[in-house]
Amino acid sequence: MLLEHINEPKDLKSLSIAQLEQLADEIRTFLIEKLSATGGHLAPNLGVVELTLALHYLFDSPKDKFIFDVGHQSYVHKILTGRRDQFDTLRKYKGLCGFIKRAESPHDVWEAGHSSTSLSAAMGMALARDLKGEKNKVVAIIGDGALTGGMALEALNHIGHEKKNLMVILNDNEMSIAPNVGALHHYLGKIRTDRHYQKAKEELNQFLNKIPAIGGRLAKTAERLKDSLKYLLVSGILFEQFGFTYFGPVDGHDLNQLTELIEQASRVPGPVLVHVITVKGKGYSPAEADSFKWHGATPYKIESGQMLKAVGPPMYTEVFSEALMELAEKDERIVAVTPAMPGGSGLLKFADRFPDRMIDVGIAEQHAATMCAALAMEGLKPVYAVYSTFLQRAYDQVVHDICRQNTNVVFAIDRAGFVGADGETHQGVYDIPFLRHIPNLVLMMPKDENELRRMMKTAIDYEDGPIAVRYPRINGLGVAIDEEMTPIPIGTWEVLREGESAVIAAIGPMIPVAEEAAELLKREGLSVRVVNARFVKPLDEAMLQRIADEGLPMLVLEEGAELGGLGSAVLEFYSLQRRDDAHVRIMGVPDIFVEHGSVKEQRQEVGLTAEHVAAELSTLLPRVRKRVTGQV
Amino acid sequence: MLLEHINEPKDLKSLSIAQLEQLADEIRTFLIEKLSATGGHLAPNLGVVELTLALHYLFDSPKDKFIFDVGHQSYVHKILTGRRDQFDTLRKYKGLCGFIKRAESPHDVWEAGHSSTSLSAAMGMALARDLKGEKNKVVAIIGDGALTGGMALEALNHIGHEKKNLMVILNDNEMSIAPNVGALHHYLGKIRTDRHYQKAKEELNQFLNKIPAIGGRLAKTAERLKDSLKYLLVSGILFEQFGFTYFGPVDGHDLNQLTELIEQASRVPGPVLVHVITVKGKGYSPAEADSFKWHGATPYKIESGQMLKAVGPPMYTEVFSEALMELAEKDERIVAVTPAMPGGSGLLKFADRFPDRMIDVGIAEQHAATMCAALAMEGLKPVYAVYSTFLQRAYDQVVHDICRQNTNVVFAIDRAGFVGADGETHQGVYDIPFLRHIPNLVLMMPKDENELRRMMKTAIDYEDGPIAVRYPRINGLGVAIDEEMTPIPIGTWEVLREGESAVIAAIGPMIPVAEEAAELLKREGLSVRVVNARFVKPLDEAMLQRIADEGLPMLVLEEGAELGGLGSAVLEFYSLQRRDDAHVRIMGVPDIFVEHGSVKEQRQEVGLTAEHVAAELSTLLPRVRKRVTGQV
Repeated sequence: MLLEHINEPKDLKSLSIAQLEQLADEIRTFLIEKLSATGGHLAPNLGVVELTLALHYLFDSPKDKFIFDVGHQSYVHKILTGRRDQFDTLRKYKGLCGFIKRAESPHDVWEAGHSSTSLSAAMGMALARDLKGEKNKVVAIIGDGALTGGMALEALNHIGHEKKNLMVILNDNEMSIAPNVGALHHYLGKIRTDRHYQKAKEELNQFLNKIPAIGGRLAKTAERLKDSLKYLLVSGILFEQFGFTYFGPVDGHDLNQLTELIEQASRVPGPVLVHVITVKGKGYSPAEADSFKWHGATPYKIESGQMLKAVGPPMYTEVFSEALMELAEKDERIVAVTPAMPGGSGLLKFADRFPDRMIDVGIAEQHAATMCAALAMEGLKPVYAVYSTFLQRAYDQVVHDICRQNTNVVFAIDRAGFVGADGETHQGVYDIPFLRHIPNLVLMMPKDENELRRMMKTAIDYEDGPIAVRYPRINGLGVAIDEEMTPIPIGTWEVLREGESAVIAAIGPMIPVAEEAAELLKREGLSVRVVNARFVKPLDEAMLQRIADEGLPMLVLEEGAELGGLGSAVLEFYSLQRRDDAHVRIMGVPDIFVEHGSVKEQRQEVGLTAEHVAAELSTLLPRVRKRVTGQV
Repeated sequence: MLLEHINEPKDLKSLSIAQLEQLADEIRTFLIEKLSATGGHLAPNLGVVELTLALHYLFDSPKDKFIFDVGHQSYVHKILTGRRDQFDTLRKYKGLCGFIKRAESPHDVWEAGHSSTSLSAAMGMALARDLKGEKNKVVAIIGDGALTGGMALEALNHIGHEKKNLMVILNDNEMSIAPNVGALHHYLGKIRTDRHYQKAKEELNQFLNKIPAIGGRLAKTAERLKDSLKYLLVSGILFEQFGFTYFGPVDGHDLNQLTELIEQASRVPGPVLVHVITVKGKGYSPAEADSFKWHGATPYKIESGQMLKAVGPPMYTEVFSEALMELAEKDERIVAVTPAMPGGSGLLKFADRFPDRMIDVGIAEQHAATMCAALAMEGLKPVYAVYSTFLQRAYDQVVHDICRQNTNVVFAIDRAGFVGADGETHQGVYDIPFLRHIPNLVLMMPKDENELRRMMKTAIDYEDGPIAVRYPRINGLGVAIDEEMTPIPIGTWEVLREGESAVIAAIGPMIPVAEEAAELLKREGLSVRVVNARFVKPLDEAMLQRIADEGLPMLVLEEGAELGGLGSAVLEFYSLQRRDDAHVRIMGVPDIFVEHGSVKEQRQEVGLTAEHVAAELSTLLPRVRKRVTGQV
């Protein structure tokens, strides 16, 4: 075993290529075994074993800076930088993070989670290095999918202009999370499919230099010239037009070729791009066969490749998926739009059934949003299916294009609230605060899967502007499903449990927590009303007025940032309505970034539990008792 | 005069090219004259006179859809679509909008204001057209600067993939608002500087076909081949790699060539890109000479080209500019970053003085933000100078890269609050709601220009994470400037005027309004305290507790969205602190998009005036009187 002797990158330096190859095998075995218990991003990491080894072998981390785009492919890097022993805790509460984490190691220099940031980070580090007169290398490792994100292209453009020394490794696995989309993908495909283009390029140059000497064999040579021109056109010209020196493509699993090419590229001044072809899931046949499924794996049986599934009611994502298909059967205006997340957003079946009405734009949240506005303006019903955390990328387009123009775009915001193991970069806790202040938008969250279906119907029927439904990354409650989807009147809340002492207004998965808290308080003889505050905007103003009229204190409960959230909406309403007699407490996610763990642990950490809710509400109860008994 | 007979696009159809040329001259004269009184985007519109004529001449608006990127270059389009008579009201309250406005005309099919949205809009319209089985043309008109915005590149990538019929007109004026930045710009420069590339391309093809016949003159021909190859490489290959058929470059002021090429391009299936070279300010020599200055003009004297300047204290932008230079003299870590707004953000002098420390990334707000995080991580002090409305584009990067990693990035947020004539697409009223809920961020707004200087010092000295100062697009108050910039303790508010009946907590330009309201109430015998709530985050918690302890009712006043704003922050604070005894009212910009006009008119429209403030506060006063007198 070589692996057990590798505790930091310098332990690699004395190894031969053959030993690195052995080490690659050992790392694969290690990853396959460890992740079978914890789950995690198996396929992406199996794809970059040799690449990561080559980088640590050739360069000098952390002086030289490795910037992993997204960062879910950094497990090998973590193994090589002294964190091998922590893999049993991967993605668990207080355990090893599934992404780059600066607090874990000085070798982790740039954190991510969202795609396409690495080139901008590399540019910043290269600029800072040169301004400080330092000498280190800066290497960004970015996938072909991430390259379609607008900010990556903004950075390419700027890097090509400034001509700083930095290296971009294009980790081209022909597939980001979903099968890749776009012209860039076709372009890379062209380069990829001809391994001899570099030779052809050289041949063309030689040919041009030698033309006068060729004489009689001209006709045949002209044929070759045409082919060569074609090669020239499909080579790295796109990147060269952006100002990069292009190297590749190279087999990302051949350590000899890989180390040679990267070393060669590292001697070239200015920005260089090394095009590395890798196979996602490399070395584990189930993952190679379906790298899409194995992008993020749940625990699995190694031999069979069978993933262990949690049992329970369908996830909200699936409920959305089924509802959308049912609605699309009857309403031809419906088109589904996804930024490279057809699987995660539950749209694969939809794509099979309505291929013309499924638009996957690649990693391009901004373009997707603005395109939706145009689709809606032309009378279609675009359903923009997007994770809460990724919708952050399109905030401006939501304001400026969708809401300002008041277009009938439907948002299906998945992963709203805590997301568990993906942690702080993926928490869906900001969409209420960043959407709620935008004029014209309706924003809903269902209490259960049947209500999600009704909200989808509500959204499709709504013709007065943009409307969003957000739902969490958890299983539904297993409730009965209505035969027919019936819409819900806009801006209406629902009393789920009557009560005369106080009110809890809660949304989504906080409703069961509210009900549990009400039970706890019942034991103390208090009768707490539980309200499903399913419309975050517009609020149920009539119900809020009634609650204030009754003089009932109220707790607003949400699994989202408590600054700017639903609670603030209620506070603002009463203030604007001059209801100085209202008494409102808010509970949500406090003003911190909440790290990885289970959703339950995350809720516990921030106090979103029935016990905490009951305790908070009881601080309002002296007022209640006073009101009820007339005592001070 | 031809112009007076042109009331809709069909009036153009019968004209000859010579008549269109005459019309172009008349339109230029019209624009130069009208804008001399109103101000407006003169140079961009003078640049697209022939282009707009050609489009309306060749196509059939509104059936065919013209999508103007940003939309500030749509004046000619407005003239040709029946709005000639409204130019005296341009950019005035209730007058003609300076951008595309659907409410004005059926020919206005897509509104903008922010850059780089047109390709996504065109894609949506083309997709919708094909799904509906319709036949119209879709034409996006985009500048070379806007093309560097990430979402434009996302759209290029998607369009190249889908191969829908649509036309992109690249209006290449070698300069967007600021001198252009980036590899794309160099690339376009290469194409532009050789007008014969198309010929060369053809020659190469002919040459290749004829090679066997050339024989003896081979040496000379080989030379030509090399040149031709070079031409080939600099031609539209970038766009062709993205899947477009490329046409151009063509002189955008030659109506013969222009109409011919656009017509030719319109017959080609799939996405086509027509590269049109235009001169900003064409036909008005002052604007041609300095198209940067004349991008957005104030009223001016036609003969001399002298712009009429408002007199008064320096604008906040200038104050920021001077303060930053003074700080940068003493602190080498400071670098300024702008997304294509060196002029608007007041950084031109900085660029002259510290050329190495000025980074203009082009229209690339996202890249700029993330790059700032990396610069800060490496020990520099990046100052990201950006308009409030454009920072919306980088919301995700602010959350995910800058604040989550807690990097020492300084934000200089200009145009915060109402912006006047640019109207609803440019209002800086959302930055508080979209920034306030992000952990780790400090957010400030100064009461006057001296305090802006102090806040810049505060920001540069701050070492605990990201810090932002926002300031309005107006003149300062003309206050005295401290000799030395002294920092302000984080999270401290300031009592500007003592009072015992109630409190107004206001920020920035609402402070004089608050003081005026206090004066009005003084006449009624009420003593109102005015507080400068200069830290939006963190709040001055000690002061807020004291105010609640005193039992004083409080009005929070801001020129920003009242949902999620400073007022909500105060409400949340009291709620989270269980101060059920606090009584807070909030006043800000209501939940609507506020259109163009003067800042004064915009404030009037939404009730942000001393009279309204006094009236609102007085609704809280019965409570005050009760407290003071003991009466009910």
